[in-house]
Amino acid sequence: MKNNKVVLAFSGGLDTSYCAIYLKESLKMEVHSTIVNTGGFSITELNEIEQKAYSLGVQTHASLEETNNYYEKIIKYLIFGNVLKNNTYPLSVSAERIYQAIALIEYAKKINASHIAHGSTGAGNDQIRFDLIFNLLAPEIKIITPIRDLQVTRKEEIKYLAQHGVNVSWEKAQYSINKGLWGTSVGGSETLTSHLALPNEAYPSQLSKTDSCKVILEFEQGELCALNSQKMDPVSVIQELEKIANQYAIGRDVHVGDTIIGIKGRVGFEAAAAAIIIKAHHTLEKHTLSKWQLHCKEQLANWYGMFIHEAQYFEPSMRNIECFLTDTQKTVSGKVFIELMPYRFQVLGIESKHDLMKSDFGEYGEMNKNWTAEDVKGFTKIMSNSLQIFKNVNQK
Amino acid sequence: MKNNKVVLAFSGGLDTSYCAIYLKESLKMEVHSTIVNTGGFSITELNEIEQKAYSLGVQTHASLEETNNYYEKIIKYLIFGNVLKNNTYPLSVSAERIYQAIALIEYAKKINASHIAHGSTGAGNDQIRFDLIFNLLAPEIKIITPIRDLQVTRKEEIKYLAQHGVNVSWEKAQYSINKGLWGTSVGGSETLTSHLALPNEAYPSQLSKTDSCKVILEFEQGELCALNSQKMDPVSVIQELEKIANQYAIGRDVHVGDTIIGIKGRVGFEAAAAAIIIKAHHTLEKHTLSKWQLHCKEQLANWYGMFIHEAQYFEPSMRNIECFLTDTQKTVSGKVFIELMPYRFQVLGIESKHDLMKSDFGEYGEMNKNWTAEDVKGFTKIMSNSLQIFKNVNQK
Amino acid sequence: MKNNKVVLAFSGGLDTSYCAIYLKESLKMEVHSTIVNTGGFSITELNEIEQKAYSLGVQTHASLEETNNYYEKIIKYLIFGNVLKNNTYPLSVSAERIYQAIALIEYAKKINASHIAHGSTGAGNDQIRFDLIFNLLAPEIKIITPIRDLQVTRKEEIKYLAQHGVNVSWEKAQYSINKGLWGTSVGGSETLTSHLALPNEAYPSQLSKTDSCKVILEFEQGELCALNSQKMDPVSVIQELEKIANQYAIGRDVHVGDTIIGIKGRVGFEAAAAAIIIKAHHTLEKHTLSKWQLHCKEQLANWYGMFIHEAQYFEPSMRNIECFLTDTQKTVSGKVFIELMPYRFQVLGIESKHDLMKSDFGEYGEMNKNWTAEDVKGFTKIMSNSLQIFKNVNQK
Amino acid sequence: MKNNKVVLAFSGGLDTSYCAIYLKESLKMEVHSTIVNTGGFSITELNEIEQKAYSLGVQTHASLEETNNYYEKIIKYLIFGNVLKNNTYPLSVSAERIYQAIALIEYAKKINASHIAHGSTGAGNDQIRFDLIFNLLAPEIKIITPIRDLQVTRKEEIKYLAQHGVNVSWEKAQYSINKGLWGTSVGGSETLTSHLALPNEAYPSQLSKTDSCKVILEFEQGELCALNSQKMDPVSVIQELEKIANQYAIGRDVHVGDTIIGIKGRVGFEAAAAAIIIKAHHTLEKHTLSKWQLHCKEQLANWYGMFIHEAQYFEPSMRNIECFLTDTQKTVSGKVFIELMPYRFQVLGIESKHDLMKSDFGEYGEMNKNWTAEDVKGFTKIMSNSLQIFKNVNQK
Repeated sequence: MKNNKVVLAFSGGLDTSYCAIYLKESLKMEVHSTIVNTGGFSITELNEIEQKAYSLGVQTHASLEETNNYYEKIIKYLIFGNVLKNNTYPLSVSAERIYQAIALIEYAKKINASHIAHGSTGAGNDQIRFDLIFNLLAPEIKIITPIRDLQVTRKEEIKYLAQHGVNVSWEKAQYSINKGLWGTSVGGSETLTSHLALPNEAYPSQLSKTDSCKVILEFEQGELCALNSQKMDPVSVIQELEKIANQYAIGRDVHVGDTIIGIKGRVGFEAAAAAIIIKAHHTLEKHTLSKWQLHCKEQLANWYGMFIHEAQYFEPSMRNIECFLTDTQKTVSGKVFIELMPYRFQVLGIESKHDLMKSDFGEYGEMNKNWTAEDVKGFTKIMSNSLQIFKNVNQK
Repeated sequence: MKNNKVVLAFSGGLDTSYCAIYLKESLKMEVHSTIVNTGGFSITELNEIEQKAYSLGVQTHASLEETNNYYEKIIKYLIFGNVLKNNTYPLSVSAERIYQAIALIEYAKKINASHIAHGSTGAGNDQIRFDLIFNLLAPEIKIITPIRDLQVTRKEEIKYLAQHGVNVSWEKAQYSINKGLWGTSVGGSETLTSHLALPNEAYPSQLSKTDSCKVILEFEQGELCALNSQKMDPVSVIQELEKIANQYAIGRDVHVGDTIIGIKGRVGFEAAAAAIIIKAHHTLEKHTLSKWQLHCKEQLANWYGMFIHEAQYFEPSMRNIECFLTDTQKTVSGKVFIELMPYRFQVLGIESKHDLMKSDFGEYGEMNKNWTAEDVKGFTKIMSNSLQIFKNVNQK
Repeated sequence: MKNNKVVLAFSGGLDTSYCAIYLKESLKMEVHSTIVNTGGFSITELNEIEQKAYSLGVQTHASLEETNNYYEKIIKYLIFGNVLKNNTYPLSVSAERIYQAIALIEYAKKINASHIAHGSTGAGNDQIRFDLIFNLLAPEIKIITPIRDLQVTRKEEIKYLAQHGVNVSWEKAQYSINKGLWGTSVGGSETLTSHLALPNEAYPSQLSKTDSCKVILEFEQGELCALNSQKMDPVSVIQELEKIANQYAIGRDVHVGDTIIGIKGRVGFEAAAAAIIIKAHHTLEKHTLSKWQLHCKEQLANWYGMFIHEAQYFEPSMRNIECFLTDTQKTVSGKVFIELMPYRFQVLGIESKHDLMKSDFGEYGEMNKNWTAEDVKGFTKIMSNSLQIFKNVNQK
Repeated sequence: MKNNKVVLAFSGGLDTSYCAIYLKESLKMEVHSTIVNTGGFSITELNEIEQKAYSLGVQTHASLEETNNYYEKIIKYLIFGNVLKNNTYPLSVSAERIYQAIALIEYAKKINASHIAHGSTGAGNDQIRFDLIFNLLAPEIKIITPIRDLQVTRKEEIKYLAQHGVNVSWEKAQYSINKGLWGTSVGGSETLTSHLALPNEAYPSQLSKTDSCKVILEFEQGELCALNSQKMDPVSVIQELEKIANQYAIGRDVHVGDTIIGIKGRVGFEAAAAAIIIKAHHTLEKHTLSKWQLHCKEQLANWYGMFIHEAQYFEPSMRNIECFLTDTQKTVSGKVFIELMPYRFQVLGIESKHDLMKSDFGEYGEMNKNWTAEDVKGFTKIMSNSLQIFKNVNQK
């Protein structure tokens, strides 16, 4: 094998540590471990992961900082579309994996790797997201998936690592946590059942503040532009809001969904910023978009979310939908007032120069100024014509 | 005028009291006041309204008990469809008005009335719901709408009533409340703005219990059949659950929506039972329906909700959608475990013999038993064929 | 009445001639007759109409040449969307009326008219298209509709005209014909029934050529750019193709549809160019768009067509859909080969550098090169997982 | 191998003849050849195929007559839904394969076979339809696909057959023809290109009648019940109509579609009865269904067609859609008058007691009786409220 350079998607956990050693020792490859940060890691955490990588003997390790790109390419549209899978899940992990796959394979191409490896098992969505995108963007780079192919157990992994001099203590965390810009997923023994909820302590953020507080989110053409009247870029708004809201342990729920491979999966998540931002943005839209804009958007956005989830990010229709969603946002500008409370929040109201309620045209529930009782009677009469005809023809 | 019998939709409030006197005194009609109970009134309240009616000199007064019929004809399908208008509002009042209109006009036909009157203004949805349904089901019965046509002010109404010997004190409630089986709407000065939330005290139910409690809802083919393991009919489950949940002040929110006449409207509501039942039912469906059943249902159900809201209950497609929704419920049976807490609730999990997660077929995130790594690789390869081709053709 | 300038939508027929005299003589207004050409009139016809107008004593007459604008604003998107209402009708008249209404009201604003008049009756779609758009774009200009309001009969119109010195012979054509860029509608006694077809002679174009001929349409990003290898603008392609195809009497059919006012209407039409172009464009799309692009487009485009038909052109979602449709056309470039024959045509095939069939990737029905039998078996296995689980859980 | 009974899907062609010998001679299995007739074969043809099978040494041969079941399970719904894939293709072969797969595997279970074999290649849709349905309905029966797995060429097949004493002359037909109840597909060298049409002689039916003729189709709740006033069952109507229409060479076209494996495919077809019946049924629906019934049906039916095409017949949502479609057909009864002409046909009109055009309620284009000019003005005013508000808020 001439070029035996392999890029390894590396998280520092047992599975990808096993992969690092396996690729190096058993396959005799030159391992370039890589982690893509899409907002889930602090600099400290990234440094720790880097040290771990080098301690396993990798040739190079790279931390790819992609949070802003991730926002621009995916999260922006999830906000435009108010995407909550099955009205629940903000696609915290699904979206992230897609973007990480893209960043990883671009990096592999850049460093001229012949192979790319990931630690996915054979029973989840991630294997398909990685394989599909790697293969699509660089069919010339071969994919290696040791965990899936070898079906090694946890015990075997630890033993193999020890045989190669890696004697770290691999305690199994009670809950597997996956943190990112758009939320944190939480898996545990409970999520493998249908009837048990995750206990309070399974969630990374714990209630630390009980007095309610108010926040103001500001949007410009659908994009976040300020938090509490301080201008900042969208990613910063998301991250700052997350910090505030996590003190209230907001945004927890459990999602039951369909995996790409056709089985049902259940996962807990904590996504305070995503939950608040989507409800805030949706409320602003209810004030600034027409009924039919809201109607058309909803269907396309749900579709968009499903396709993100199912690794269809590169389906050409996705670009068309992004174009549609962007066009709908022209009037979605203004402030949204929100109150945060322990475990919950409330959208208080909005303020926008595009607010369709603030017309001097008619006022709901009050005296109408621009039409008469006769107008409404005529409207109702004509509106019922088709029903009258159907009844006359079919029910006599 | 030979037959001058008029059925008056009567609530006991200022507007319909004015109508009663106006019809009797100014139009010299024989007034038959009628109230349709769709779950919002207690017997005591209905008796008080009856007494009020007779004190205004109506010929007869009727309380039509229609709660079960209302459930059977509309609420059942809103549950099957998990209908929340704009992901928020359970259509508490919209659905009720439709059914009340039907019951009123049927009663008018039964007592051979020549006219039917309602107290709607000219700026809301209700006028259209009443007019359209009255006219559709009995075009021979004429509609009278004094408030809309005369555009009388509150002050003029009180003066007119006093002139005719009705000297009740008509204090204006700070919040207009509309209670029904599927929720209570709350309007006030705040809901006429875009930026203000309703204050805590505007909501009828106030927090009276702080210890969390668990409830079990049981569904049989999509219909509620037991609460906390006690078998009861669906209406009883809704009403009993509402009582329990109201102690926690659950289910409050504000809805901003499009009226039938094209203006935006904002209304507060409190709908604890509806909120809990829809989330519980939806969760049970996520476990028991296929991905595409969930997908198809969502679109049709949103459409159904929009048409209920917009007085299109008799559109023939509504019967076809009801048929579809009913057919999807064949496997939606089982228990849903819920925890109630102050101002919020959590669906803990479900138990169902139709649970698609409980298959011995494959387990999410764990070792797969029914397929191999090679199967998934083949799947992913074929799945990406169309994307590969599009890329090859267009991006080279 | 200070300003009594009225713009009259004028076609030269009996109804609008009556309007011209009525506005001038009975209402004492200053009449500015106007005709909007959206491709249906030759210069000779426009001159005849102008002479007729002046003979009726109008102050000024204007022929607004708007064919290109009409294409740019509406027809382009009907082609992008392959819009055929109920899979039949290219919206020949519907689309035209919308654009004519816009041009008329803009002209009325320009000449500072206080009123605008049209000759629609009270039983069709056009009254709503005109009223709605006039009122929306210039609420300050009052609308006059003599035919609808006075409900005059044909006989009364002729008598009134004669009384005012207009003694033209107003023979009633057996078929009412409405010609435009995107097709000609034909109404007659048969279209008022449900069971009779229009006779051959009712259609304006008659078979004059029996030898088949081939034509080549060329598209660039969804827009027509050449006919038989001669570069020309889209409107010219449509008009030249129409001339050729009319010799074959292609594109006749009868449409049964729902009017905006809720009654069913039936109309014959002849739309050779529209029929050929839409099938040609659609075929090119089947070769150059992905399955999901075709799927998403179809739904949005049908919606777009319905809204054009129903005078909802200015609904904000229409702009979003136009944006979506335009974005889908990026790869819709190439040639389409068509054969014209008496009363019918056939799309022979296409040629495009974006043709997804011309990939060297896999060949339908032949030996596959990019995947193995095992890949397909894996694909099929994983694809059936959800069905297997549903069966296992529910059918055992 | 104890039980080595294999059911072979047998057509009598080269591929399945090769399979018969291969299974018997190379795999030493007990071959039970089977053909499922879904309307494509005459008794004579079935007898010839049977003789061929026995001459190849099969243990037993079965002709399963399934035309009526095929109609009941699939074709009925394709008619209810007016299903034409991409507005073109009636799914002639797609639907048939699904049903054949079901009948074959049921037969295999009945005769207690351990294996089932089919002759599909690795580049088309059929392999997935067969594999998926066989595996779903009888996972215990193993699937054998010699052609796909061995990738034998035509020449090798003939040689192998000769080696085993089968010396039939296997002339390659210029066009591969697949005949069924719902149409005949035609593949040839032209359909492997994008630009060539099939020549006239490629189609099985040739023009043999030039005088036009009229036919009357009668539907009862969406199902065919009479042809030219003669009562017959739906299958007989389809088959008799096909015979008449084939004399006119009606219903030819070329379909370009997406295969399940993601590549584009092009196929010619001739489907006179399907083309006529779908247009007739759709026309009857336009007269008897409401606008929104037509709208909802179209989306669900297109989805249904796509899922039939893609082997998703057993997706649970398909049963729900069938239920919906059936419910819409309650008023779809009446006669449709059709004229057949060389290469084309015309729906002349319909007659139905449910005809919504035949109301005495209002008449399109004529004087309206049930509403006034003022009613329409009021309707238009209210209808434009939302547009007025949007304009006022956003364009000032």
